[in-house]
Amino acid sequence: MRVYADNAATTKISPSALKVMVDAYQHQFGNPSSQHRFGQDALSLLNSSRIKIINDIGAIHHDYLIFTSGGSEADNQAIEIFKREGLRTHKKHIISSKIEHHAILHSLERLANEGFEIELLDVDKNGLINPESLKKAIRADTVGVSIMFSNNEIGNVEPIEEIGAICKDKGVLFLTDAVQAVGHLPIDVKKLHIDLLSASAHKFHGPKGIGFLYINRNVTPTSLIVGGGQEYGYRAGTENVPAIAAMETALTEAVTGLESKIKSTRAKADRIITELLKLKGVKLNGDRVRRAPGNINISVKGVNGDSLRYLIEAEGIAVSAGSACNSKSKDPSHVLKAIGLEDELAKSSIRISIDETLTEDELDYLIKGVTKSIRALTEGESLIK
Amino acid sequence: MRVYADNAATTKISPSALKVMVDAYQHQFGNPSSQHRFGQDALSLLNSSRIKIINDIGAIHHDYLIFTSGGSEADNQAIEIFKREGLRTHKKHIISSKIEHHAILHSLERLANEGFEIELLDVDKNGLINPESLKKAIRADTVGVSIMFSNNEIGNVEPIEEIGAICKDKGVLFLTDAVQAVGHLPIDVKKLHIDLLSASAHKFHGPKGIGFLYINRNVTPTSLIVGGGQEYGYRAGTENVPAIAAMETALTEAVTGLESKIKSTRAKADRIITELLKLKGVKLNGDRVRRAPGNINISVKGVNGDSLRYLIEAEGIAVSAGSACNSKSKDPSHVLKAIGLEDELAKSSIRISIDETLTEDELDYLIKGVTKSIRALTEGESLIK
Repeated sequence: MRVYADNAATTKISPSALKVMVDAYQHQFGNPSSQHRFGQDALSLLNSSRIKIINDIGAIHHDYLIFTSGGSEADNQAIEIFKREGLRTHKKHIISSKIEHHAILHSLERLANEGFEIELLDVDKNGLINPESLKKAIRADTVGVSIMFSNNEIGNVEPIEEIGAICKDKGVLFLTDAVQAVGHLPIDVKKLHIDLLSASAHKFHGPKGIGFLYINRNVTPTSLIVGGGQEYGYRAGTENVPAIAAMETALTEAVTGLESKIKSTRAKADRIITELLKLKGVKLNGDRVRRAPGNINISVKGVNGDSLRYLIEAEGIAVSAGSACNSKSKDPSHVLKAIGLEDELAKSSIRISIDETLTEDELDYLIKGVTKSIRALTEGESLIK
Repeated sequence: MRVYADNAATTKISPSALKVMVDAYQHQFGNPSSQHRFGQDALSLLNSSRIKIINDIGAIHHDYLIFTSGGSEADNQAIEIFKREGLRTHKKHIISSKIEHHAILHSLERLANEGFEIELLDVDKNGLINPESLKKAIRADTVGVSIMFSNNEIGNVEPIEEIGAICKDKGVLFLTDAVQAVGHLPIDVKKLHIDLLSASAHKFHGPKGIGFLYINRNVTPTSLIVGGGQEYGYRAGTENVPAIAAMETALTEAVTGLESKIKSTRAKADRIITELLKLKGVKLNGDRVRRAPGNINISVKGVNGDSLRYLIEAEGIAVSAGSACNSKSKDPSHVLKAIGLEDELAKSSIRISIDETLTEDELDYLIKGVTKSIRALTEGESLIK
């Protein structure tokens, strides 16, 4: 049996999303900026996809929903909006956290080089931001706050509603990198007072190379990529209509019956966590309760994460040692460091990320295989039976 | 009959490229940064696609080939490289032309706002750069030259080899926006002394949302989108492997037997040009000889281009009035203005863009339909027979 349990890195496209994409390539391949029927057919699909996604995230039709090439571009563009807003209002202070994705952190580093003051909040031992600390950190010259919705490594879900309310109250922009959350957790940008939200389709069974940046209509967008007048004039380049339509299909599919999917995925993940915590040296990273339904991140004392991942793969199970984006780095994860793990324990971690597509058989197999692999390394148990 | 003759706006994906994309979504869907088999299978496809594209454009394996979300992003990133190089070497002069795509022109405008001096060369009445003028324009503080390979509106092919030789001789960077050229004209970046070249797959029967930026290995790349360490660390974001593999398939297909395809497409375009030039008031825009094989751009005196496009569409033929990227603009095309057309004549233009997929039957039908439409407007010939 082969089990894919690295859905936080990427997911397999849903069959219906793939079908929509293929159909669009065959029947709506025109350039949506073209005036002829081929173009207008594509434009029609583009518009209907946009409206459905706007609905899926609780936005309204007057908001901006800018299609990007993925989560990283959306994050980069969102920080560009912070920059422009900061320059316009002479505010140079931006608040974020130590556990953000590098697409946010590196974008903020660029701003730091251009005279902005970047304050990265600490998180608690479970990776959570303290809303009171955030409140205290906001100053008269704070332009915006960037806190991710749920973390790609340890799965902790930040108190987004409280953070949104604070930002709204203080009159600062609130950006949330929701790449790991969209399609997996209920999201209502209005209820949560989110001004900017980034998402990536391939994290919720949509196609690769497509994502979006939601922008509250009260915010003035800024382009990252300039050129033609596509996307309200804020994102140049021929729109990737087939992928956009497929993303909409995947997202609408993901949020349909989301509560019951979350319950089911959470139950499976809980079983994995419960079983693995029985093993010697195993520690769960991230919050036990405020956690993305399918995320299991553990450290195993005295064990090298790469070796463990390798053993688990020998069982036919794909999990991750660290996040895919930084798999080439030899440094311990900045997220695990931020929650206080010593380097050794940080390097002993693996991430299992499942979703509702995991069958019960696969679940049983996964628990058995991971347990066996951990035991082999911690108890010297023979792999050959 | 319905005839699509707007291939400069976008092309229909080739069946084999679509198949490769679908196969990759099913069998190589992993994140190429992941260490497990699912990831490594995707990485293998990514690597082999990169090597084949490098070969297709005459680059070598030590050059950079950075996958982007398309031509606009590649253009933006290339200009970002000019900026970084200019800041590093304290050179603030950049040379380009008045007929560049807006992805170049607007990127250059951003640099102008940051203290760079942008010099836009005039073109002759056929849209061609005079290499001697370029040579004279290069100064000690010139960081780079950006001249498009062939124009998206009027199809003229610039003297890239001469421009490349001049830039090499003068020691300045040479960027060419080759979005309309890659897959349609022979390209050898080494022979042409190109330092940076941008391309977009959907212009050569590849998928949408994917393109690349070629960077000579002697040039230091700069990121536009930051985050994870993908693409040599110069383009963050999970690689869109299925689209990249499909782009490679489409490109390799396009450049296979290219000379004979060019000959065949050119013969068809020549027939269209010859027939249309027989009509009263019709003028060809762009160079008659140095021209992209499938481009036909005409002005029809006294006729509104939009009305003409509309009549042609009523015959079932899709052509463009202006470039798709600026279809919403009411201003006359900056390209047609640059070649000296009065506003009225500029607004009387249509672009027909064919390629080797146009059948002889479609060709006959196209000539008949366009002729009829032009006559209806210039001679008041009744459309009802």
